[in-house]
Amino acid sequence: MHHTPKDQDPETVKNHPPSPAYPTRTSRRGFLRQSALAGGALLFLAPRSRAADAGPAPAGPENETLKTIHRLHTTHGNFRDQPLPEDALRTILRACVRAAGASNNQSYSIVVVRDPARMKQLCGYAGPCLLLFCADYNRMKASAAALGYDYQPGTVVDFVNASINTLLVVQTAVIAARSLGVDSLLTNGVHRGDIERHWKLLDLPATHCFPLIALVLGYADREPPHRTGRLEGVGIVHEERYHHLTREEVADIMRQYDDKERHLGLNTDWDTQGYAHYLDWYFKAWVGRNLKPGTQETQMLRLLKRSGFIEAQPG
Amino acid sequence: MHHTPKDQDPETVKNHPPSPAYPTRTSRRGFLRQSALAGGALLFLAPRSRAADAGPAPAGPENETLKTIHRLHTTHGNFRDQPLPEDALRTILRACVRAAGASNNQSYSIVVVRDPARMKQLCGYAGPCLLLFCADYNRMKASAAALGYDYQPGTVVDFVNASINTLLVVQTAVIAARSLGVDSLLTNGVHRGDIERHWKLLDLPATHCFPLIALVLGYADREPPHRTGRLEGVGIVHEERYHHLTREEVADIMRQYDDKERHLGLNTDWDTQGYAHYLDWYFKAWVGRNLKPGTQETQMLRLLKRSGFIEAQPG
Repeated sequence: MHHTPKDQDPETVKNHPPSPAYPTRTSRRGFLRQSALAGGALLFLAPRSRAADAGPAPAGPENETLKTIHRLHTTHGNFRDQPLPEDALRTILRACVRAAGASNNQSYSIVVVRDPARMKQLCGYAGPCLLLFCADYNRMKASAAALGYDYQPGTVVDFVNASINTLLVVQTAVIAARSLGVDSLLTNGVHRGDIERHWKLLDLPATHCFPLIALVLGYADREPPHRTGRLEGVGIVHEERYHHLTREEVADIMRQYDDKERHLGLNTDWDTQGYAHYLDWYFKAWVGRNLKPGTQETQMLRLLKRSGFIEAQPG
Repeated sequence: MHHTPKDQDPETVKNHPPSPAYPTRTSRRGFLRQSALAGGALLFLAPRSRAADAGPAPAGPENETLKTIHRLHTTHGNFRDQPLPEDALRTILRACVRAAGASNNQSYSIVVVRDPARMKQLCGYAGPCLLLFCADYNRMKASAAALGYDYQPGTVVDFVNASINTLLVVQTAVIAARSLGVDSLLTNGVHRGDIERHWKLLDLPATHCFPLIALVLGYADREPPHRTGRLEGVGIVHEERYHHLTREEVADIMRQYDDKERHLGLNTDWDTQGYAHYLDWYFKAWVGRNLKPGTQETQMLRLLKRSGFIEAQPG
């Protein structure tokens, strides 16, 4: 079902037409429903909506890094047909590994993919360049084996540690890219469909390597119309101990989602679709299939076990 | 065993003496062995070691954000007795939530802890301020319940998605802090010892909330003597497909770790301790206890199950 397009020049993306390799608006909406991580955009932010969006005006010193962070936004697949300069890619890669990591063991791998057909198979999107970030102990395993040790990181703790190390690198890459004017799309589309395709397409090691997230890098063909909002206070930040929400606070959060100028939601037409609240749409139409507790083993859990990342179960 | 110091003013850290609440150098070395995420420091970087460290000189445009990223380094508990200004904390919190997240559902919570005794109980370190980052669906669950939905994110996929969302926020906080001159310590010490203490100390929700990592913020009492190195090429970055290391490449990686000027390791006295290679020390003395595959259920897996983050196993 998934074929590796070995015969395709990885560099063809540079001269590739925007379609059909890059998703059309229609198809990307399909993928968006499934897998895009929603970002925000600072652009076209009218003073009125800014006040509504951001709560109190930013306090404390402003600097270029903070401005870069507040300019983060997700490009939903609408990348221009403009290559990512090799220098920019290398700058991003060199920066991202500076993230801290447990024991400095760098338990991750970054697969750089330039073949747009392969990108679409991997995550449903394509652009000038894709970075697939994997939790990965195989470099360490090979070093241990060379020294005569049988290193088998075999528990969920190892998986969580490697995932932490990996994701810190991922976000550093996103911020480094933004600072260079490079747009990005983070997508967990890697976990949709048959996850096993990653092993087949990329020849991933059978154990102790697990694909976590894809980052597509490039240049957007248009600027986003608004910045996606974020909840910032109650329900997100807890002071000294966990604060369990009161009924009134839950109602207030619901109101915040319903305030279209906050741009907290994935759409703004939930009301015309017949829903009383955005979150009503969200829980019924968006995550409706997940409303029941998981009673069957997911493919991810099966593959985590096969990858050696879940320890033996008690008998 | 773990008591919540309810009677202690959360603000006392501001006037708190550096010890005994903050770890001494001796005690922090103990914790460092266990739980600190190794960062790097750009300071005191001699030209010779820079060439050795970084490979080719940085290419492409330099900017303040990239400089901030390359200045990232971990403070191993040696925080000065200087409070974190409230403005800086709020700026960091406002910035970090700008990270992208799946469906913009913000499936995380950030517990701000200022009581140094509690910090030490949580992660083994203390400083002016600690942020505990948890994967957390409880805000969404409460909203769903208010609308009559029974939202139970019950699979490992939900845990991984929330972990991704959370860690992207974490690293954004680290970089925002660095840009403000705020030093930081990321530690997975939260997963050492009895992990259940977090629920007791912080009143975390019984299900669908899991502590992932702690970030201690403050000001270091000294600058680090060198920048921790990183592997950057073969074994980390793979081109188009996964590259399985050759024997010679493994030997080269071993040599890179043995080159003390690269600062890839956690120590530089492995040879005087009688080890032929740094990685020999690493696998034997550091991760020796993990050299066997996990055959027993870890507390983390048990608590992930209890938290509703592992779906039912096939019978």
